[in-house]
Amino acid sequence: MRNSRTSEVPPSESAAAGESTRGPRRRDVLVGAAGIGIGAAAMFAGGAAVQSVSGPATFGNETATSAANHQWRIHPEPPAHAVFIAVDLDQSVDRARLESLLRILTDDANRLMAGYAPVGDQEPQLAETPAGLTITLGFGPRLVDLVNPRAKPEWLAPLPAFKIDQLQDAWSGGDLLVHVASDDRLTLAHAQRTMLKDLRAYTTVRWQQDGFRNSRGTLKPGTTQRNLFGQVDGTVNPAPGSADFDELVWIGANGTTGVGGASPDWLAGGTSFVLRRIQMNLETWDLVDTPGRDAAIGRRIDTGAPLTGSHEHDEPDFEALTPQGFTVINPVSHMRRARSEDPTERIHRLTYNYDLPVAGVGGMGASVSDSGLIFGSLQANPLTQFVPIQQRLSDADLLNEWTVPIGSAVFAIPPAASGGGFIGDSLYAA
Amino acid sequence: MRNSRTSEVPPSESAAAGESTRGPRRRDVLVGAAGIGIGAAAMFAGGAAVQSVSGPATFGNETATSAANHQWRIHPEPPAHAVFIAVDLDQSVDRARLESLLRILTDDANRLMAGYAPVGDQEPQLAETPAGLTITLGFGPRLVDLVNPRAKPEWLAPLPAFKIDQLQDAWSGGDLLVHVASDDRLTLAHAQRTMLKDLRAYTTVRWQQDGFRNSRGTLKPGTTQRNLFGQVDGTVNPAPGSADFDELVWIGANGTTGVGGASPDWLAGGTSFVLRRIQMNLETWDLVDTPGRDAAIGRRIDTGAPLTGSHEHDEPDFEALTPQGFTVINPVSHMRRARSEDPTERIHRLTYNYDLPVAGVGGMGASVSDSGLIFGSLQANPLTQFVPIQQRLSDADLLNEWTVPIGSAVFAIPPAASGGGFIGDSLYAA
Repeated sequence: MRNSRTSEVPPSESAAAGESTRGPRRRDVLVGAAGIGIGAAAMFAGGAAVQSVSGPATFGNETATSAANHQWRIHPEPPAHAVFIAVDLDQSVDRARLESLLRILTDDANRLMAGYAPVGDQEPQLAETPAGLTITLGFGPRLVDLVNPRAKPEWLAPLPAFKIDQLQDAWSGGDLLVHVASDDRLTLAHAQRTMLKDLRAYTTVRWQQDGFRNSRGTLKPGTTQRNLFGQVDGTVNPAPGSADFDELVWIGANGTTGVGGASPDWLAGGTSFVLRRIQMNLETWDLVDTPGRDAAIGRRIDTGAPLTGSHEHDEPDFEALTPQGFTVINPVSHMRRARSEDPTERIHRLTYNYDLPVAGVGGMGASVSDSGLIFGSLQANPLTQFVPIQQRLSDADLLNEWTVPIGSAVFAIPPAASGGGFIGDSLYAA
Repeated sequence: MRNSRTSEVPPSESAAAGESTRGPRRRDVLVGAAGIGIGAAAMFAGGAAVQSVSGPATFGNETATSAANHQWRIHPEPPAHAVFIAVDLDQSVDRARLESLLRILTDDANRLMAGYAPVGDQEPQLAETPAGLTITLGFGPRLVDLVNPRAKPEWLAPLPAFKIDQLQDAWSGGDLLVHVASDDRLTLAHAQRTMLKDLRAYTTVRWQQDGFRNSRGTLKPGTTQRNLFGQVDGTVNPAPGSADFDELVWIGANGTTGVGGASPDWLAGGTSFVLRRIQMNLETWDLVDTPGRDAAIGRRIDTGAPLTGSHEHDEPDFEALTPQGFTVINPVSHMRRARSEDPTERIHRLTYNYDLPVAGVGGMGASVSDSGLIFGSLQANPLTQFVPIQQRLSDADLLNEWTVPIGSAVFAIPPAASGGGFIGDSLYAA
């Protein structure tokens, strides 16, 4: 039974099972994101799983960015549901026990993403419909220190303090990130529970953030989604496959980047992930009329077009003036402040909405929403890419009136495991 | 601005707007579920909304059960996401103010379901993709008492106590139910907020329950979904359109039913809704092996087939014996106990899963899940249909070892509003 699996079970147990006829050979599920997608589709071609259904049959089969050794599977249309869980390692977890844990997590993640139940799964049918399932691990500073302190990148630390921050410990930090995403919320629940059971004997949950986006099929593919402010959110997000995407997001061979700063070798093919929990005050935002909203954002709230243009993807003209001599786009609008002249000061955003139940409240004066954005950001180097953007927005951004960062965490995202290895094996070898 | 709308605003404001050229004529959105589906599709035929996308374009356009005056739109494949919110009326709300509230809620629900933003909606774009949105109102005992105490059905009261219950006030009762469901979680969030803002000046939120099912497209249409136990859940659920569905679910003309007991006239075309929150202990369920699970349920957990059959929909043989002389299907298995010889002792189930974040826990011994079923049940008469089933399950059901009802509520579901009227108008006229 799975519950009885402990760190004493040799990692070869799961590897051996992966090579049996019951599942894909281990190597098949470790060749990288693009390979996985094709593999999973082929494996289910004759079955009753999602692949045989029209429409959403493309769950998780979009073109991934490259077949290189990336762990994080970045899709142009992220899954509709995501959970981000940060755990802290128990004091009893040493370097060797952590390796056992990482081997188990790697194995289970690979099986689940391929539509196979992990060893000992008591509800294996819930694993049969991955619906674009992705599982990603990220390492916090303490985890890297435990394995190999000299291999810690300079940027793997809490972000500098920003004056807009009202950070809560309950939403910040963490030793290990487990990110699970799927177009199906039930699939996600099962995969999440599998990973949490793996983690149980080694860690304590620090925080868990559940988020959602529009479901697959609600909007035309390629449509920029709106957030709970109604704002078209992510128009200029660098897309996987675009010219400089790889350079912006992935850490290169030997840890080099094209965005300034270098990372340790072991992160080649990896990236960094910044997660900010941004509370959005829907109550006070409700008091703002459409022109006020347009001005705060710098774009029309209805179409997402810059105030100097007529279509969402029109280039804004920051010099254009009103008849009264003011710039059409307010210099402290969100769009203006987020924009840098330096093309390397860009990030790939991965955002989800949250909207938590609030019971026991009423009356016009009470705030009845606990809503906002789970703002994820992938970049080769947080210090040269994320921080300057956040610093400008912290210094001045009209949107700050209605938003407050209440959580913050930085994780190193290791590359994919090598054949027969585990996520983080390059850190152990560094 | 919507925030400034109070009970002083005459109801004709919204009715008049509904008849403007900006939206469907009010009558068009009040003709019943089947009409709405067609109407909504036609309205969006030329637009960019969900209807133009392949696959999930059928969101909400399945055949509804009938074009009669039913408010509750029962679909064979319920939306993937649902919220159930119970509010209590403030002491200041009298019969007349309640009518104002019900008119506002009716109007906003009709607009939202048709893909139109309510009057004063500050994020109207979030209303453009209903994705099968349904909004349903239910009345608790206190609400009916306030309007017309003599018109309260006998069954509109807390259920009799069952020995398995461990009910919490925080999940039980309520004066008014607002149920919102959609295949898109963002659409749901916007519709929910619209309704909550309407309610704010009149009520206090008592509880809110968020639930999910498999996403549209994950499973082949017609597949019975599994719950978080991995159990195929709802095999014998009477389906909309089946022979005796209408008789089981809807209250007939003059309040008559074919299931025993009568209801007041004003509920003709309505129904009753029982909501039970059932905590499922995934931790102890994990300790049970497959034969133990099969025995507890009376069906094979892998296929959902009765233990005397080989396919999910095979009729169980409760007399079949093992070589040792025991019945193959345990007489206290869940399936056996749920089954009645009386064909009127059946209900239409509408179930969603819940799985709440649990932070700050670790260690093998700790329970780390807060999961279960939001068990909804529609029936013409709870006392003759729901109660006998629940009583048998409470008296003996192997599954009780791992499940605990922690919330319970009963609501009267009024019929659809008459032309120009509001949900509940027949109660006012009774």
